[in-house]
Amino acid sequence: MEVEELLARNAELVEEFTKNHLSREGVPSLLWESVIYGATGGKKLRASLLFATAKAYHVGEEEVLPLAAGIEMIHSFSLVHDDLPCMDNDDFRRGKPSLHRAFGEAMGVLAGDALLVEGLRMFTENREFQRAFGTRKTLAVLRVLLRALGNQGMVGGQVLDILYQGKEVSEREILDMYRRKTALFIQAAVLCGGILGSASRREKTLLSRFGLLLGECFQMKDDLLDVTQESARLGKTAGKDLVQGKATLVRVKGILETERMMEERFQKACQVLEALPRDFSELLALSRFVITRDR
Amino acid sequence: MEVEELLARNAELVEEFTKNHLSREGVPSLLWESVIYGATGGKKLRASLLFATAKAYHVGEEEVLPLAAGIEMIHSFSLVHDDLPCMDNDDFRRGKPSLHRAFGEAMGVLAGDALLVEGLRMFTENREFQRAFGTRKTLAVLRVLLRALGNQGMVGGQVLDILYQGKEVSEREILDMYRRKTALFIQAAVLCGGILGSASRREKTLLSRFGLLLGECFQMKDDLLDVTQESARLGKTAGKDLVQGKATLVRVKGILETERMMEERFQKACQVLEALPRDFSELLALSRFVITRDR
Repeated sequence: MEVEELLARNAELVEEFTKNHLSREGVPSLLWESVIYGATGGKKLRASLLFATAKAYHVGEEEVLPLAAGIEMIHSFSLVHDDLPCMDNDDFRRGKPSLHRAFGEAMGVLAGDALLVEGLRMFTENREFQRAFGTRKTLAVLRVLLRALGNQGMVGGQVLDILYQGKEVSEREILDMYRRKTALFIQAAVLCGGILGSASRREKTLLSRFGLLLGECFQMKDDLLDVTQESARLGKTAGKDLVQGKATLVRVKGILETERMMEERFQKACQVLEALPRDFSELLALSRFVITRDR
Repeated sequence: MEVEELLARNAELVEEFTKNHLSREGVPSLLWESVIYGATGGKKLRASLLFATAKAYHVGEEEVLPLAAGIEMIHSFSLVHDDLPCMDNDDFRRGKPSLHRAFGEAMGVLAGDALLVEGLRMFTENREFQRAFGTRKTLAVLRVLLRALGNQGMVGGQVLDILYQGKEVSEREILDMYRRKTALFIQAAVLCGGILGSASRREKTLLSRFGLLLGECFQMKDDLLDVTQESARLGKTAGKDLVQGKATLVRVKGILETERMMEERFQKACQVLEALPRDFSELLALSRFVITRDR
């Protein structure tokens, strides 16, 4: 299957699952609708990375689906809060008005909170998931996700992103910010696949290394697309990084050098995977998509 | 020990623990400081309720402390987001400027998110807690907390709070909103004490019933204080409910009838506890404080 096709199929799977499993009962309809609005659209790359990693360990999509849906909801939480007027103030996301533009600013805060909480509930409350993986693995993936989100992870990265705006920032500082705000959560999606697949300690270390490199590639490509692609194709406002004076690698090192650094990381990531005696063809295909995509 | 003394001592315990266990390493200092700022102050009633319930099951404070600190951070998350300009727009909280007034609106969003994530990590990452209670109980209390926070719980209650503003709302709708936005999380704190103490299924049902009634009492008292007490004593802006056209029981039923309804619930709550053959004296003392407090 072509990668684009695979992503589209996985995205449908995840969105279907989310709609069917996010309880409507006793939920104000405005909240339910805004949460679904926030969870809909996008490439669902993190879910596909989880599926692909789990597949290499012979764990089926159906079993992993509750966690895939949860991870995508949690990712959506971060986008919804990022887009708020007091943050990046973005009106456009996933080819439609950002959540706070569609439902108001208060709902931007609350639906964001709900996406995080309900995202965690998606797999911690799911009986089939518990039956398949048990409490120990459930708690292990929960810890990995929370670590990637917390003060040393995504939230910390967002704070740096704000602090660095309009400042002279070194390459090292930018890479550190990328690691936190983007790469750790992508790493988490990959690592969770290994955890659910009972990967050995060494395998988990290598999967983590791979995931981090891939996550850095993802953010670099995102920055490149911001300056080279149009809003309509991206589904979000292009050229914003420069306008907002964001500290990006493209700004500090230029387009070509950023591409080179991304390519270098991609090669390293591939080498890491090659050290593992598993069929990672799908994961590699997705990785290639990460650095070649045009959206 | 007098209740006020007990609360003060517990608050100190919890704040000490939080400061010592919230990692500073690799955390932007602005984020660490704003999270600690958000977690500091307040009565720490939910932590005390957890301690008191656990105590009735002979589970010591020291063991429960990571969860108590986590619950209070999560409670603080809800206050920080509530105070944001696009929500209740409150400048004053716990006797000091609200978080977004002190650190800016973006930090109000981000430190709020961090309080939730790091609050969950406080006990799910704590080794002594895992050793004392195991993965099954850890996951059980996590589920109880997330359920109280999610779409049917606190977030849903906040959405109703916004939707009901300035509207004609029935007593039933207001009580339903109180249950969600306040009572379920207080119930969760009590129930978690029972879970950690290996309470039987019947005991957990009764603790849940008690916690819900107490949580309703808490919100009713809060509304009464809003109209009868001064800001300086409350540590937050008094009289705001009326100004903002909030749907409160006091507005619909008046002060005396609200007091009567609260009293009635308190009596019921006491009766529920009496059905359990345990020493709940501390929990009862705290409950009495909930309905007699002046702040």
